[in-house]
Amino acid sequence: MIIMGLDPGLAIVGYGFIEKIGNSYKVIDYDAITTPAGMPSSQRLEHIYREMTRLIDLYQPDELAIEELFFNKNVKTAISVAQARGVEILSAQIKNIPIYEYTPLQVKQGLVGYGRADKKQIQHMVKILLNLPEIPKPDDVADALAIALTHGHTDKFKSQYLME
Amino acid sequence: MIIMGLDPGLAIVGYGFIEKIGNSYKVIDYDAITTPAGMPSSQRLEHIYREMTRLIDLYQPDELAIEELFFNKNVKTAISVAQARGVEILSAQIKNIPIYEYTPLQVKQGLVGYGRADKKQIQHMVKILLNLPEIPKPDDVADALAIALTHGHTDKFKSQYLME
Repeated sequence: MIIMGLDPGLAIVGYGFIEKIGNSYKVIDYDAITTPAGMPSSQRLEHIYREMTRLIDLYQPDELAIEELFFNKNVKTAISVAQARGVEILSAQIKNIPIYEYTPLQVKQGLVGYGRADKKQIQHMVKILLNLPEIPKPDDVADALAIALTHGHTDKFKSQYLME
Repeated sequence: MIIMGLDPGLAIVGYGFIEKIGNSYKVIDYDAITTPAGMPSSQRLEHIYREMTRLIDLYQPDELAIEELFFNKNVKTAISVAQARGVEILSAQIKNIPIYEYTPLQVKQGLVGYGRADKKQIQHMVKILLNLPEIPKPDDVADALAIALTHGHTDKFKSQYLME
C-alpha cells in the first residue's frame, strides 16, 4: 500500500510517499511544493493543484494522510493556509483517493508513543523508520513523512480518522 | 462584459451572473450551490468544484468578483469556509478568469455610497439595479449579485482589487 503524507500549506506544501510492506516501510519520494510570496494567490493555488495532480498520477497513492489545521494568532495566514488546504484535499478527492486526517498530537503518539514528544524526536523516528541518510529538510517535508508513517501505524483503526 | 459574483461558502455558495451593457445591467442567472452538512468535507469540495466549473463553462464570465473572508469567532467554521473559498478561486483560475476581491465595506460603498448601509438597503439596490421582481433568497444569492454589481460599478479602478 502506498501512502501519501501531506503537511498542508500555501508557501510550502511538504509531501512524502511511502510504501508499507508488511510491518516495514520503503520511502518512495519526498520533497515540497513551493510557491513564491510575490505570486498572486489564485496562481499559487493553481500551481499547487497542478503539482498535486502530477504527483498523484506519478506515484498512484492508495491513501492520503493530511495534517489537521490549527489556528495560530495570525488570522490572515490562517485563511491563506486553509484555502490552500482546500485545494490540496480537492486534488486527492478528484482522483478518488480516501483522505485521512491526523492532529499533531496523534502524530506524536503514533510515532513516539508520547504526546509531548518534541519535533526532534519525531524527526529522528522518521529517519530511523525510513532508513534515511539524514533528516529531510525543511521541517515540512519531515512532517509530511511523519504523517504518512502515523497513518501506516494506525492502519487497523484508521476508519475513525477518515475525513468527515 | 459578463461578471460572475460569488459569496463564498461551504454549505451555501451564492452566485450571480450579470451582463454589463453600457451603464446598465442585465441579469443572466442567480442561485446557490449547496452541500449537505452530512456529506464528508472532501466530497463537498469536489461538488463545489464541479458545479463552479459547470457554471463557468455555461455562462463564460469575463471576470469573477468574490467577497473577502473575515473571521468570526467560530474558528472551525472559518477553516471550513476558507478551504471552500480556495476551491472556488481555483475553479475560476483554471479557466483563466481574472479574479477581483471586495470587502463588505466596499460593496456597501459601491452600491449605496455609504459604508454603514444595512443588508436591506443593499438588497433593495440589487433588486432595483437588476430590475428583479423580488429580492433573491437566500441572502447569499443577493450578496453574490451585490458583489457582481460592485465590480461593475468600480470597473475603471478595478486593477487595485485584482487578487494579490
